[in-house]
Amino acid sequence: MSAEFVELTATEAAGKIARGEISSEDYTRALIAQVDHIESKVGAFAHFDPEFALAQARQRDEYRANGNSLGPLHGVPVAIKDCIDTAELPTENGSALFAGRRPYKDAAAVTRLRAAGAVIFGKTVTTEFAFYHPGKTRNPHDLERTPGGSSSGSAAAVAAGMVPLAIGTQTNGSIIRPAAYCGVFGMKPSHGLVSRAGVLSHSRVLDHVGPFARSLDDIALILDAMAGYDEEDPDTKPYAVPNFLSGVRQEPPVAPRLAYVRTPAWSKADKATAQAFEELADSLGEVVQRVELHEPVYSHAWDDLRAIMTADMAHRHGKIVGRGGDVASQTLRDFLAEGRRVSATRYLEALAQAKQYTRSLSDFFEYYDAILTPAATGVAPKGLESTGDPAFCSLWTLTGLPAVSLPLLQGENGLPLGVQLVGPMNRDARLLRTAKWLLGHLAHNEAAEVA
Amino acid sequence: MSAEFVELTATEAAGKIARGEISSEDYTRALIAQVDHIESKVGAFAHFDPEFALAQARQRDEYRANGNSLGPLHGVPVAIKDCIDTAELPTENGSALFAGRRPYKDAAAVTRLRAAGAVIFGKTVTTEFAFYHPGKTRNPHDLERTPGGSSSGSAAAVAAGMVPLAIGTQTNGSIIRPAAYCGVFGMKPSHGLVSRAGVLSHSRVLDHVGPFARSLDDIALILDAMAGYDEEDPDTKPYAVPNFLSGVRQEPPVAPRLAYVRTPAWSKADKATAQAFEELADSLGEVVQRVELHEPVYSHAWDDLRAIMTADMAHRHGKIVGRGGDVASQTLRDFLAEGRRVSATRYLEALAQAKQYTRSLSDFFEYYDAILTPAATGVAPKGLESTGDPAFCSLWTLTGLPAVSLPLLQGENGLPLGVQLVGPMNRDARLLRTAKWLLGHLAHNEAAEVA
Repeated sequence: MSAEFVELTATEAAGKIARGEISSEDYTRALIAQVDHIESKVGAFAHFDPEFALAQARQRDEYRANGNSLGPLHGVPVAIKDCIDTAELPTENGSALFAGRRPYKDAAAVTRLRAAGAVIFGKTVTTEFAFYHPGKTRNPHDLERTPGGSSSGSAAAVAAGMVPLAIGTQTNGSIIRPAAYCGVFGMKPSHGLVSRAGVLSHSRVLDHVGPFARSLDDIALILDAMAGYDEEDPDTKPYAVPNFLSGVRQEPPVAPRLAYVRTPAWSKADKATAQAFEELADSLGEVVQRVELHEPVYSHAWDDLRAIMTADMAHRHGKIVGRGGDVASQTLRDFLAEGRRVSATRYLEALAQAKQYTRSLSDFFEYYDAILTPAATGVAPKGLESTGDPAFCSLWTLTGLPAVSLPLLQGENGLPLGVQLVGPMNRDARLLRTAKWLLGHLAHNEAAEVA
Repeated sequence: MSAEFVELTATEAAGKIARGEISSEDYTRALIAQVDHIESKVGAFAHFDPEFALAQARQRDEYRANGNSLGPLHGVPVAIKDCIDTAELPTENGSALFAGRRPYKDAAAVTRLRAAGAVIFGKTVTTEFAFYHPGKTRNPHDLERTPGGSSSGSAAAVAAGMVPLAIGTQTNGSIIRPAAYCGVFGMKPSHGLVSRAGVLSHSRVLDHVGPFARSLDDIALILDAMAGYDEEDPDTKPYAVPNFLSGVRQEPPVAPRLAYVRTPAWSKADKATAQAFEELADSLGEVVQRVELHEPVYSHAWDDLRAIMTADMAHRHGKIVGRGGDVASQTLRDFLAEGRRVSATRYLEALAQAKQYTRSLSDFFEYYDAILTPAATGVAPKGLESTGDPAFCSLWTLTGLPAVSLPLLQGENGLPLGVQLVGPMNRDARLLRTAKWLLGHLAHNEAAEVA
């Protein structure tokens, strides 16, 4: 029974709970059993209190038994990255500088998850300050490899079946990369789709909150709960958002057109990855066209992101890291020192450039439904001292475009290799529909090959 | 007849034109006669074409004769500062670097003025780049004195009766200060109330567009035409704006409370000004309370504005000024060089501080209707080589709060001395009502004294 529960997607679990086929308590208990079974190896959680999770689950069951109408995530456990505030669990941002920190209220995204009926399952490990210095988490596919970062625990917990859904954050490549390394679905929504209020802030321009799941429907399901205007986040927009779950389930009226874009970071892709993507593009035939971004323009994007990120982080965290002496890692301290050397005019130029990249890519989406590109430079690297290279995420973070990582390919030793789809701004529902179509299309091709 | 026309307020003129008592052509002709009479001394206009103005006026008269419904400024001439784009007149930003420049379309504010029926009367002199280096304009009250800057021509043209209304811009003290020196009403509306699209841009945070007039009703009248959401200016707000003219004509339900605030810049006020303000505060009795801003907090605001303004201007104008060699003034080049030395973290800190000042002042307005404070350090200084000191405007520009300059006092040689009222954010209509109340209250007191 327990194993069967662990394999449920969130959408399936929510359906079963709503129909009374299973209780939230039994489901949560099965997930706790899975944590007991595997967490000592994976180390996905920073804070985990089974009693706290079970108490919520029982409350959800009682709420249902009383005949109340249920939210879309009713009774479904969701894990929260430890740089996202929770009032009832510590939020330590992966740094001893925040040891014992208890926020006085939930982050906006957490409030919305609760309102949708979710059970807050625990806090997942983030790298130090949601930056590069790794936490304790290991990759469930190979414990000697990194799960990626900075949302290490969220990706690993979902991959290891400890929870069907988790949320994380991305300022450069912190959702897409760990999703790819851990072989789960991950999404960095359009900038401003999900509120960052109550989330450790690096940069207003670069910060995003997004989900991890084991199906695309689950990504849509949790987006439905989290997306939308929040007056506490000035980049959220006072518009209605579409229903993502019905969006992802729609058949596209015409077959999508994909642009296979290698980006100026292409040389960072390892040989096997480059080859796997060339083969994927070939196998997709007319669906995909090879498009090169104009290098003289786009090759600066990585430097632009770095100028913004270092300066914004130096501004936000300079004081607390400075007061902490050598508590913060050398990596982080060096990064902040670099940020202090960025001039205001360089910073402003990088911001202006970022807008320019977004604008020129939006022309691009007049023709293509999505960009197909690697989620990472390869499979999860060996060792736990690094969380890997975010190079294939930077441009899409800087431009704020929505991106998903799909666990479609396998690399060396059968390890997951993520395929990234990037869509037009604020067309997240359409991007999910395109991604779903691609999954179906590839499954169909494969079946045809076997037959 | 001509002299009588020149003394009309815009509200009076618009009423007479609407009722058919005068034609826009006759009115415009009278103003042109005043330009012929006095412009050679004052030098308020950068570009002036009487035929262009008359052609529009005749069009307005024809439009009315055809029975069309009229906009609030129908047939009323308005002068435009030469850093605000006009498609049919040059826009040279007070610099040879823009000699002969013809924008391909009107600034948003100009489009709105036209839509309200205004006659675009001519382009008024701005200092170089709407910054400190003066243009040719002289103060109509004393031709040996500066009219203030950077909206020098707009203030002087209205003061000299050449036009009833003009618009200008303020990034530090460029509306309030010239209005004060020239003895007219000037308003810097709340940040984001009037679109800056098509206006020479220094700083998204600091730039404002606002009017000059010879009555408060006229200020309200032109605000009604210009205010409101514009998708080309990301700081305008997608909300309805109140009707300012009906606002300014309302009697406040209770007598307003004013806070007499000297600000940390007080030592810059000359002796006569300081004394005049002390006397004004005394004469107002219970209406006004003396309030000191907490100096350790607010004394940094002037440096914060300077960090933002220098860096933003270096970013925006660095290239064109650099390419121009010594075409730009040394003052401007030094300022941009200073901007290039500002670090991104200093810039970000200044932006964060600006928000903090705005927030803490908004608590302040829970109790007071408006702040009463000098508009300038004194009367218009002698000489034309400087446009005076914006020190009494900086804090209100940085915080984005609405401010009006009222020509209520007289200083040395009977020269005008401006009284500044500053109101709560986005309560521009209420600020105008408070200002109107103060005018009436002082007139009543004076009448009582005489009797």
